Amino acid sequence: MSGDEFDLIRRHFAPLATDPGALGLLDDAALFRVDPGEEVVTTVDAIVAGVHFLPDDPPDLVARKLLRVNLSDLAGMGAAPFGYLLTTAFPRDVDEAWIAGFAAGLAVDQVSFGLALLGGDTVATPGPACFTATMLGRVPAGCALRRNGAQPGDRLYLSGTLGDGALGLAAATGELDDLLAEDDRTFLARRYRLPEPRVELAARLVGRANAAMDVSDGLAQDAGHMARASGVGVVIERGRLPLSPAAKRALEARPDLWPAVLGGGDDYELLVASPAGLGDDALLSEIGRADTGSGVRILDEAGGILDLDQAGWRHFVDSASD
Amino acid sequence: MSGDEFDLIRRHFAPLATDPGALGLLDDAALFRVDPGEEVVTTVDAIVAGVHFLPDDPPDLVARKLLRVNLSDLAGMGAAPFGYLLTTAFPRDVDEAWIAGFAAGLAVDQVSFGLALLGGDTVATPGPACFTATMLGRVPAGCALRRNGAQPGDRLYLSGTLGDGALGLAAATGELDDLLAEDDRTFLARRYRLPEPRVELAARLVGRANAAMDVSDGLAQDAGHMARASGVGVVIERGRLPLSPAAKRALEARPDLWPAVLGGGDDYELLVASPAGLGDDALLSEIGRADTGSGVRILDEAGGILDLDQAGWRHFVDSASD
Repeated sequence: MSGDEFDLIRRHFAPLATDPGALGLLDDAALFRVDPGEEVVTTVDAIVAGVHFLPDDPPDLVARKLLRVNLSDLAGMGAAPFGYLLTTAFPRDVDEAWIAGFAAGLAVDQVSFGLALLGGDTVATPGPACFTATMLGRVPAGCALRRNGAQPGDRLYLSGTLGDGALGLAAATGELDDLLAEDDRTFLARRYRLPEPRVELAARLVGRANAAMDVSDGLAQDAGHMARASGVGVVIERGRLPLSPAAKRALEARPDLWPAVLGGGDDYELLVASPAGLGDDALLSEIGRADTGSGVRILDEAGGILDLDQAGWRHFVDSASD
Repeated sequence: MSGDEFDLIRRHFAPLATDPGALGLLDDAALFRVDPGEEVVTTVDAIVAGVHFLPDDPPDLVARKLLRVNLSDLAGMGAAPFGYLLTTAFPRDVDEAWIAGFAAGLAVDQVSFGLALLGGDTVATPGPACFTATMLGRVPAGCALRRNGAQPGDRLYLSGTLGDGALGLAAATGELDDLLAEDDRTFLARRYRLPEPRVELAARLVGRANAAMDVSDGLAQDAGHMARASGVGVVIERGRLPLSPAAKRALEARPDLWPAVLGGGDDYELLVASPAGLGDDALLSEIGRADTGSGVRILDEAGGILDLDQAGWRHFVDSASD
């Protein structure tokens, strides 16, 4: 890219620097303060064209997904987001309409989630487009939710619905064309392209949950992370898992899709362990419990333990989906 | 990359998470606190193989340069660094020795600059390697150095020596083989590959400088940024610019290299405006002054104004070198 193209990108991003601490993106770095009783929570996630999003995905949705996967990580810690830094690596042939669409997507979710762009960097790459966001949030000091706090006896909850992410990717790539009606496929693809980070739920969980984390690598794997970190066993009842109507219809027709639903990732829901009943929260479904064992057991509707080692599972449970 | 390769990368990076707030890189995000009288300063910079570093550069130096270009931005604000987040996009054929070398470089500079790895993300890319670091630092509240504070009458200072970055890139790519002895070329290439962020100097400048910024895009361009942001004119006397012996020898033999020295970037020195004499600081050279005019004038040794619009300059002064 030429200097003109860098200027063009800056012109599209400058209006996003709505916080005085961003210093108009004109200084070497950004500034922010936190209240004495707060901790800063920060995370970073990158997405690469052709790996984490489809090259022909609409640019505004790519931008919003970038923010949302990071927001989901903050939600997993119970934090309230306030700003982010952005690195864009654009291919040399990117056109202005794509950049404008990307910036428009950022603007929409800045408003939705109360964010400001605090800083960034733009580079040219001979490779595919790659975007990195560093998300910053606040949490009352000492109150961040961790994945290591689950206790035997805790009830386990899951927010939203499970499996829409993995089924949505399949829908977006045409794999479910023969299985589902167009409405269902559109719904699922939208869930894949635009996950719903559970930011408001996270604020409600601070002080009430023993442990929380976002489910981005698949429930089976992420529940294993919580079990290991907390030194507990996790039992999940498959029959209690919250499913969208579209996912239900897909699974009725194709039960072999269960491994994708339980292990496929990209759901960005929260897995929560709590000693208190949280069933009054409309976003949460009770899906199981923590016990004194270890590892993850997923029970089928008859109470039998699903064999996660069998062939259809290995792809989802063993491989990191980063 | 397979799940095994992601695990391998995590094994190399996990020992770098030396701060308790990194939570062992096991949670969704990292935590940190700042004292009530402090502000957080943050910046992000990315480097791409073949664009910002040479594909056969040693991996430890690539890692250290990544940290140092970010540290230089914090130094430009007068901030003391404490931690960083790291995103690595590795090509699928990266070998473990390269990853180990990269992690070793991070470890060395973590010790040199008092840093801890707070979080990160690892992705696979079909393109060239790309690394992004988000650097975090602290500054007493309200005391961050900005580039908009220069006043007419301020003296201008530059740290270290100028032009080694641009000449070092030329040396590293063999362009100076006929011009300089091997020792000089080695020195310059090292300065290109391993810039020296002026972190300690930055701490000394807080409260004494009216304005500061790091010189990463070339002195001519960056001085223009300070002039515009501060609403002043900047006059630089070329004869007072601090040069390394190697750069001096290069310029004596090839005066046509002056545009590269004055505009080539990659120096990561600090440009400082101060009403007080800072000449007692061994790192600083007085190079000019701010006045009531606008823009940048660079005076040659006879007091004439260099014409930055002439052909040899345009490449350096007009084009962004991000």
